[in-house]
Amino acid sequence: MPDDTTQARQAVEQLQAVGASLHNRDCLATWDCAVNDLTAVLLAAEVLEQLYRANISCRVFESGLAVSLFRDQSTRTRFSFASAASLLGLTPVDLDEAKSQIAHGESVRETANMISFLTEVIGIRDDIFLGQGHGYMRQVAAAVEEGRRQGVLSQRPAVINLQSDLDHPTQSMADLLHLKHTFGSLEALRGRKLAMTWAYSPSYGKPLSVPQGVITLMTRFGMHVTLAHPQGYDLVPQTLEIAARHAQESGGSFQVVHSMEEAFHHADVVYPKSWAPFHVMQERTRLLKAGQRDQLAALEKEALAANTKHRDWECTEKLMALTRGKTPGGALYMHCLPADISGVSCESGEVAASVFERHRIATYRQASHKPFIIAAMILLTRFDQPAAVLNTLLDHSRPRRAE
Amino acid sequence: MPDDTTQARQAVEQLQAVGASLHNRDCLATWDCAVNDLTAVLLAAEVLEQLYRANISCRVFESGLAVSLFRDQSTRTRFSFASAASLLGLTPVDLDEAKSQIAHGESVRETANMISFLTEVIGIRDDIFLGQGHGYMRQVAAAVEEGRRQGVLSQRPAVINLQSDLDHPTQSMADLLHLKHTFGSLEALRGRKLAMTWAYSPSYGKPLSVPQGVITLMTRFGMHVTLAHPQGYDLVPQTLEIAARHAQESGGSFQVVHSMEEAFHHADVVYPKSWAPFHVMQERTRLLKAGQRDQLAALEKEALAANTKHRDWECTEKLMALTRGKTPGGALYMHCLPADISGVSCESGEVAASVFERHRIATYRQASHKPFIIAAMILLTRFDQPAAVLNTLLDHSRPRRAE
Amino acid sequence: MPDDTTQARQAVEQLQAVGASLHNRDCLATWDCAVNDLTAVLLAAEVLEQLYRANISCRVFESGLAVSLFRDQSTRTRFSFASAASLLGLTPVDLDEAKSQIAHGESVRETANMISFLTEVIGIRDDIFLGQGHGYMRQVAAAVEEGRRQGVLSQRPAVINLQSDLDHPTQSMADLLHLKHTFGSLEALRGRKLAMTWAYSPSYGKPLSVPQGVITLMTRFGMHVTLAHPQGYDLVPQTLEIAARHAQESGGSFQVVHSMEEAFHHADVVYPKSWAPFHVMQERTRLLKAGQRDQLAALEKEALAANTKHRDWECTEKLMALTRGKTPGGALYMHCLPADISGVSCESGEVAASVFERHRIATYRQASHKPFIIAAMILLTRFDQPAAVLNTLLDHSRPRRAE
Repeated sequence: MPDDTTQARQAVEQLQAVGASLHNRDCLATWDCAVNDLTAVLLAAEVLEQLYRANISCRVFESGLAVSLFRDQSTRTRFSFASAASLLGLTPVDLDEAKSQIAHGESVRETANMISFLTEVIGIRDDIFLGQGHGYMRQVAAAVEEGRRQGVLSQRPAVINLQSDLDHPTQSMADLLHLKHTFGSLEALRGRKLAMTWAYSPSYGKPLSVPQGVITLMTRFGMHVTLAHPQGYDLVPQTLEIAARHAQESGGSFQVVHSMEEAFHHADVVYPKSWAPFHVMQERTRLLKAGQRDQLAALEKEALAANTKHRDWECTEKLMALTRGKTPGGALYMHCLPADISGVSCESGEVAASVFERHRIATYRQASHKPFIIAAMILLTRFDQPAAVLNTLLDHSRPRRAE
Repeated sequence: MPDDTTQARQAVEQLQAVGASLHNRDCLATWDCAVNDLTAVLLAAEVLEQLYRANISCRVFESGLAVSLFRDQSTRTRFSFASAASLLGLTPVDLDEAKSQIAHGESVRETANMISFLTEVIGIRDDIFLGQGHGYMRQVAAAVEEGRRQGVLSQRPAVINLQSDLDHPTQSMADLLHLKHTFGSLEALRGRKLAMTWAYSPSYGKPLSVPQGVITLMTRFGMHVTLAHPQGYDLVPQTLEIAARHAQESGGSFQVVHSMEEAFHHADVVYPKSWAPFHVMQERTRLLKAGQRDQLAALEKEALAANTKHRDWECTEKLMALTRGKTPGGALYMHCLPADISGVSCESGEVAASVFERHRIATYRQASHKPFIIAAMILLTRFDQPAAVLNTLLDHSRPRRAE
Repeated sequence: MPDDTTQARQAVEQLQAVGASLHNRDCLATWDCAVNDLTAVLLAAEVLEQLYRANISCRVFESGLAVSLFRDQSTRTRFSFASAASLLGLTPVDLDEAKSQIAHGESVRETANMISFLTEVIGIRDDIFLGQGHGYMRQVAAAVEEGRRQGVLSQRPAVINLQSDLDHPTQSMADLLHLKHTFGSLEALRGRKLAMTWAYSPSYGKPLSVPQGVITLMTRFGMHVTLAHPQGYDLVPQTLEIAARHAQESGGSFQVVHSMEEAFHHADVVYPKSWAPFHVMQERTRLLKAGQRDQLAALEKEALAANTKHRDWECTEKLMALTRGKTPGGALYMHCLPADISGVSCESGEVAASVFERHRIATYRQASHKPFIIAAMILLTRFDQPAAVLNTLLDHSRPRRAE
């Protein structure tokens, strides 16, 4: 497989040239990283994908833990994290809070150190309470940084955000890699229109992190990003400001509209997905923390009733026909999965069955990048010279599986 | 330890000669496999056992996941699966459906792909709903096959049945290896009488997969298999047909009787074990799916009352005296464990305490093959040239543990 | 990093000279081990710490399981065990009794074998029922010993006590290593005064194993150990006898007082920590087993009320001023964590916030030894020539992480 390693060697060279600076840092929000850092993550992920396919071992650790903490259900990200750990030679261990005694406040600092003596990475999903998950991750990161400075930890595990109330960087970076592959390069994204639109779902309370992650990230690469949602389904204001700033800096654009048609018009990429309104999530957070079950049930009922007024926000063939785009049948359709598919997983949902089925395999490919994105984040945060590390893997070309 | 490796080299040669064709396939039912494939699984398991004892590493993977999904409680099989994964170099990860969002229908296809990007094997236990577990495994297998064909997956994980409503191939193959070791060879099984008999237990609802697995498998090797149970404790009809056909093809025989004495008479091997009647399991499946708790409780009460009429179906010393067989005290006694032992784990159960105690260590040996059977299944499904892979392990003779 | 390996080589030489005899044994209580064995565990742990810091791989296993069974919540010990397993190359697998069918009596013997076919170590936490956890561990150890003798198991996993009703050897040995590092050597502990004192906590039912582990272990190294607690907060009598005997043998001393001031007076080391009175734990065990919830609630209320009478048992600055000791601000403060810190994690607790904060980082260091102590226990129980194994690691100096 000479092709694979030639491409991989070239990507390593580019990675070297990009000069990322993620060593001993965390991956909590893409907007904390320089564009070069993000480019480096994509390149490292691509190299790891190529090594994997070429049956070259990517073990860079002989031992060490990859700790995950999921404060919400997860399948895709859970397995992506475990896969990334295994690929690099780390032992994945899940911290189940029901089986330990983790509390907020004083003990976050302590627990973060207690689980880190031989740990290289801590992945956290904490997306239920608006305004909290992200803060919790920062606390953990500050604690292990203190631990390293004080000599308690001989290495400092990277904290990777596996979805917070603000950002979902492993998802948005996998999405970006999918865009890069689909359009040929990051440069080719410049000037393309991406429609990040709300879509109807018979459920309630889906996190805001996916749309927030997409609008803040894709605006950095010169894309024209249109966010569309019904009145009242706002995102966290801070993320809109970041998206606008990024668009201005990159020569792209960012606008908010309240019509799915308008967003889809001449779009190259569409990302129709349900989320809960910001103000509902705020109220929900307040009620969850107060343990007010009756009022929570009332809020859910009210929110679902509000949703049903927008049942027409569905990604149909008619809407897809408004798009342009390189893929047959119009724009590139994206989804973080699982999608609410009308007539399949629900009566009426985010996307028409025929549209989804045509793009189904492509959405699987989109998802397939996540393990490698996470592995790339570990590589770049844990090694000072990641390009050299990858070159050594290429030099050795130790088989990943017996031949 | 020259003996071990000489034997191992010979077994690898035999494996090469057998010419199995399990590569890129699954292990869902032994009756889907050719006799050569089954012989190959036994040989590969024996080689792995010999390498293990000779302290030679069996790592054939540098990384990759071994995913397990248990829809029912498990100790033995759970640890056998994790052991097999560790032995070969894979990272075992359990898919806990309570912590993810797995549903039937559309999403089986999707989830199967989402957990498989870096996965070499998926082991599934799904034995509670009659007529469903096996179908679910086939869906998962079809989904990863599609994923590989479409290029979503760069490798196709093998699906291994860790117990379904129809078969329990990792158990029955471990049982077969135990028989091979006890009688000296597969050839030596020809003409031997095996009594697979129901036995009394104070519990209810035990799966049918063990007796079904045993009668369908042992009939392929020329054994005279007698299935014995009280009237009404039938197995799934399809498995009886398969057993009868296999017996005819192999020159063995298969008969059903309703007397434990008759089955034990001159038996070389006895396998007394409780199971639920087929029609009770059907009704139970219907009620479980309908969520009818009251009727389920009534069914359980009724089934337990029916059981007590057959309290005399116990493997006693008197019954063992009817057998012939090479082991002292009569026939080889087999059990998949844990057994209901009269006066020990229950008042009155499947087997008398003195009989069990005499054969206890032998039942542990029977169980000891399961990790190696699972590892052999992974090896044969995931490698095109498993004999060559094993020879390379022998050539390198890398120590499994420091010396 | 020549320093690290020079020190490590010297420690290996000492380990060789000490001549430990833990091979194929268990670590259930430190008082079952000779002083030489304990010294060897400390030396091996120090070597592993030095190898880890020098980026030298400590993998001594290519495959194999490290099984943990936690019958009580755990964070620190759980991650220490998984870390030790990963460090040595073993795959950590947790036995969740809710997902299996483990019972006491007959089946402990069976289950112990069923999970051990490819297992090198079984770590057990069982501290809730007074008089039981330790016995359970002994049953497991006897079962795997029988399995090995009978040829069912080709290796015999070591059973390691991760906290029982009697001892907590991985904690007390990590504590001892912390003392060795703080005072310079084991010899330097001779003649030092250690105050193991009860302290107030707003909770109830904390295990006795930490104070019992500390008084029985530190008395072996010539320390003057003072146990202090309010009237009625006795430990298990057997452990007091052991501590007294150890003190006599080592030339140290052991006394029980009922005043925190008296214990702190001129102490070099203080270990203020809450525990439940022995007789309350006995009653609690009886009620838990009988399932008497109402009486349990009454007992808890009564015990908490009794606790509040001793709210003045708090490690304050004033008490610390009574101590001597090499660290600034008085004696070395120790805690197994998490501590109940007054005004931080509770209104009124074991230790004043200013005292804890001054010693906080040191308590993290104390905890940091546990993964290496567990790894050392595995090394010494599983290898006949542990010094030779460590020398081979040093000779190879294979990088733990890519360089």
